[in-house]
Amino acid sequence: MEEIVSLCKRRGIIFPSSDIYNGYAGFFDYGPLGSELKKNLKDVWWNHFVTQREDVVGLDSSIIHNPTTWQSSGHLDGFSDPMVDCKETKLRFRADQLFYAPVILQGSRVISFTFKEVIDATPEEMKLIPSPASGKPTLTAPRDFNLMFETRVGAAVDDSSVAYLRPETAQGIFINFKNVLNSSRQKIPFGIAQMGKAFRNEITPRNFIFRSREFEQMEVEYFIPPGDDVWEPYHQKWMDASKDFLLNEIGLREDLIAWDVHEGNKLAHYARACTDITFKFPFGTQELMGIAARGNYDLTQHTEGSGKSLEYYDEETKEKYIPHCIEPSLGVDRLLLAVICSAYAEDEVGGEKRNFLKFAPKIAPIKAVILPLLKNKPQLVEVARNLFEKLQKRGYNVQYDAAGAVGRRYRRADEVGIPFAITIDFETVEDDAGVTIRDRDTTEQIRIPIDDVIPYLSKAIDGY
Amino acid sequence: MEEIVSLCKRRGIIFPSSDIYNGYAGFFDYGPLGSELKKNLKDVWWNHFVTQREDVVGLDSSIIHNPTTWQSSGHLDGFSDPMVDCKETKLRFRADQLFYAPVILQGSRVISFTFKEVIDATPEEMKLIPSPASGKPTLTAPRDFNLMFETRVGAAVDDSSVAYLRPETAQGIFINFKNVLNSSRQKIPFGIAQMGKAFRNEITPRNFIFRSREFEQMEVEYFIPPGDDVWEPYHQKWMDASKDFLLNEIGLREDLIAWDVHEGNKLAHYARACTDITFKFPFGTQELMGIAARGNYDLTQHTEGSGKSLEYYDEETKEKYIPHCIEPSLGVDRLLLAVICSAYAEDEVGGEKRNFLKFAPKIAPIKAVILPLLKNKPQLVEVARNLFEKLQKRGYNVQYDAAGAVGRRYRRADEVGIPFAITIDFETVEDDAGVTIRDRDTTEQIRIPIDDVIPYLSKAIDGY
Repeated sequence: MEEIVSLCKRRGIIFPSSDIYNGYAGFFDYGPLGSELKKNLKDVWWNHFVTQREDVVGLDSSIIHNPTTWQSSGHLDGFSDPMVDCKETKLRFRADQLFYAPVILQGSRVISFTFKEVIDATPEEMKLIPSPASGKPTLTAPRDFNLMFETRVGAAVDDSSVAYLRPETAQGIFINFKNVLNSSRQKIPFGIAQMGKAFRNEITPRNFIFRSREFEQMEVEYFIPPGDDVWEPYHQKWMDASKDFLLNEIGLREDLIAWDVHEGNKLAHYARACTDITFKFPFGTQELMGIAARGNYDLTQHTEGSGKSLEYYDEETKEKYIPHCIEPSLGVDRLLLAVICSAYAEDEVGGEKRNFLKFAPKIAPIKAVILPLLKNKPQLVEVARNLFEKLQKRGYNVQYDAAGAVGRRYRRADEVGIPFAITIDFETVEDDAGVTIRDRDTTEQIRIPIDDVIPYLSKAIDGY
Repeated sequence: MEEIVSLCKRRGIIFPSSDIYNGYAGFFDYGPLGSELKKNLKDVWWNHFVTQREDVVGLDSSIIHNPTTWQSSGHLDGFSDPMVDCKETKLRFRADQLFYAPVILQGSRVISFTFKEVIDATPEEMKLIPSPASGKPTLTAPRDFNLMFETRVGAAVDDSSVAYLRPETAQGIFINFKNVLNSSRQKIPFGIAQMGKAFRNEITPRNFIFRSREFEQMEVEYFIPPGDDVWEPYHQKWMDASKDFLLNEIGLREDLIAWDVHEGNKLAHYARACTDITFKFPFGTQELMGIAARGNYDLTQHTEGSGKSLEYYDEETKEKYIPHCIEPSLGVDRLLLAVICSAYAEDEVGGEKRNFLKFAPKIAPIKAVILPLLKNKPQLVEVARNLFEKLQKRGYNVQYDAAGAVGRRYRRADEVGIPFAITIDFETVEDDAGVTIRDRDTTEQIRIPIDDVIPYLSKAIDGY
C-alpha cells in the first residue's frame, strides 16, 4: 500500500491535500493524471448508466440542502458514532474502538477479566478508565457524535442558520423526485442518477482515499412499484449491470472482486436487501459498491417531513403509491483506488524489470503518446506534430514526447499507463509505410497506415 | 427573468434546492436537462483548455483545505463584508447596503440632508439609526463578516478544528504548484486548470443562479516568468482564447457580450490588470468571466505561510523566480444562465408562435430525437429503435418519441432545445429512401441515407 501511495504522488495521480501545509487528514487532491482518470471514471459511469439508458435521467443537486432534509431522512438523529472526549487534552475517540478490561478479583487474585467496549461502561467504570491521550481517567461518558459537517448559512446569528454538508448524494435525489417526475416524461420503473461530493467527519479516516472525509459518490435511485414480490428481479438486474460496468467498462480484475450478501441482521433498518461488490485492496477485502433494495422509507419520510405528497399515479393500473427503490451506490475515490490496484503491474521486458499501469484504454488518463524517432529531423517532427494535433482535436488526451531514446520513452509511457505508443520513423516519411503502434501490455508493435490511426484508436478506446 | 426561472423549473433545467422544503435561499439543483447541459459545458471547457492544449494540465483539489491556506491567501482576514446585526431580531444586514439620512436643522427647519452608508456612521449616530427588522435603533456597529462558510473537522472540540469551505478554486491550484511541477513534465509557461464547487455565504444571494451561495468555477492559473513587460502578450492571448471559447465553442450570442477593462482603482491589490467579459443578462449587464494578470502575490504568500520554496528554476536562463500568473476564471452557473438567455428564442412556424431553445449542438443536453412516423407500425418502429440504440451506443444523449402527431413532437423537441429531429417514415422502410433530419432553428428538412446519420451528427456536434 505504501508503494501505491508513493507512486500516486510521484506520478501526479493523488497528492495529500494542502501538502505544503503538511496535509490535512482525510482530504486528498487529484493531480494532472489523477484528475483525468477520475473524470474518465465519472464520464464512463454517466455514459453507461444515464446516456445509454432510456429509463435513467440525471440530476445535480446542491451539497448544502435545506437542513429539514436531514431531519426527515433521519441523519440528524441517527447518523452518528458514539464518542468519548478526553477532558484534559480535548481529544475525541470513538467509544466503540476503545476497550478496557473489567477484572474480577478474589482477594488479590485475578480470577477473570473480559475486554469490553468503553461504550458498555457504567458511570462508575468510566471514572476508572484511562484516556489514551492523558493516561488518566479523564474521559467523558460516551455521547453520540454526528458525522455530518455543520456550518451556518445566511445572515441570522442564532441556531436557525445551522446547515449541513450532505453525507450522501441519495437524499438530493429523493427530495427532487416530484420535480423530476413533473419535468421529464419518465414512468415507473425509472431511475435518477447523480454524481457529486459528499462529506463525513470520520474520526479516523484511513486507508488512503478509501475512507476520507471528503469523497465523491455516483448513485442511482431506481424507482419501482411496491410489493414483496416486485423488487427482486430489479435488484438482480442492477447487480448484473453493476458487475458488467466494473468488469467490462472499467476493466477491474475479476479475480479481485467478489459478492457479499448482507444477512438480515447486518441490514440497515430501511433496507430489504443489500449486496455489496467487494474488492481485494492491499489492506484487505472491502466494500467497493453496494446494491440495496431500499423499500420506500426515504420517500415516506420526506412526505411526512414536508407535508407534500410524493406519491406516484400509475396511469395503467390507476393506482397511487409511494414507490420503492433499488440503489446502486459507488464511491468514485474507492473505484479509482481499485483501478490503480488492479492496473498496477510488474513484468520483465528485455531482461529488465518493468513497472507499469495497465489501465483499460477507455479510462486511461492519457490515450496515446506520439514519438518522432529523432527529435532533430524536421520531416519526422512535422508528421508527428500533425498527427499529435489531429488526435488532440479529436478529443483524445495525447502526449508528444521527443526526448531521449525510444526505449526510455516507451518506459516513461508505460509508467503512467498510456496504452498506445505511436512512433513516426523514416519508413513513415520516406516509404509512406505508416506508423508503428506499440501495445503497452504486450509491448508488441504493428505497423498501420497513418490514416488508420484514428479508426484504430476509436475502436480500441471507444469501442466503435 | 421570471419567465426564464419558470421555464427552467418546468423543463427540468434548474429547480430551487430542497423545493419540497420550500427551498433554501442561494442554493439550486440541476434537473435532468440542466445536469446534462452543465456537464456538457464543463466537458467542452476541459476539452478546449486542457485536452487540446499541451501547456495546460488538470487538477481536482479538495473543497476543504488545511485552514492555514486561507490564513496565507488573505481570505481569513480580508474576504469579508461589513455587517450590522439587529440585536432584537438577530438578523444581519450588509452595512454597505443600509443607508440613513443625517439631517442638518436650523431651529426646526431642515436645511439639508445627505444619504450616508451605515458603515460611515459614528457610534452616536448608530444609536439613532432604526433597524430594518425591528424599526427601532437596535443595530450593532458595523463589523467585518467573513464570507467563508466555517465548519469543524475531526475529533478535537476546540478552535483548532475550525476549517472552511473554499471560496474559490484558485488557491487549490497555488498550493499544488510544486507537486504538479514535480510530477508533470511542464516548463514555464504552463497552466493548471481546475473545475469544482466553491462556496460563499452571500448575505443577499440574488438574480437566480447568478449569485448563489454554492456555485461551480472553472479556472486556469497560467504561470509565466516575472517582469513588467512579460505578462501583457499572455494576458492578450488568454483574452482571445476566452472569447473564442465563449463564442465558437459555447455559442453565446456575440451581441450580448462585451469587454470591461478594470481601471487601476477598481483592481484587486494583487492584480496588475483585469479584463472582464460581460454578458447582457435580463437583470443587467454583469461579469461573466474575468481574465486577470495576478502577479506573484499568491505564490509569495504561500511561500511565506508554509516556509516552503515555491520558486521555479529556469534551466535555460539558469534563473530562479516565483512565477507570475494569468487567471482566466469562469463561473459554470453563470455561464449556464448566459447560455439559456442566449438560446431563448421565439419565432413563428406555420402561423403559430413558437418558443424554443437554440442551444449549439455541441452543448445541447439532448442531441437528437428519433421519431417513427407512426407508433403502431412495427416496420417503422423497428428501424427507429435500431437507429436510436445505435446513437446511444455512440455516446449521444438521444430521445425516442413516438407519442402524438409529428408536428407536436417537433414542438416538444424544440422546447427542450434538441437540434435535430430524425423521422423514420414509410419511404425510409419501403423505398430505402433514408430518413429526414429536421433542423430545429430553420425547421428545414433534408433527407439522407440512414447510414449517413452518424457522420452527419458527428460533423454537426463534434466538428469532425
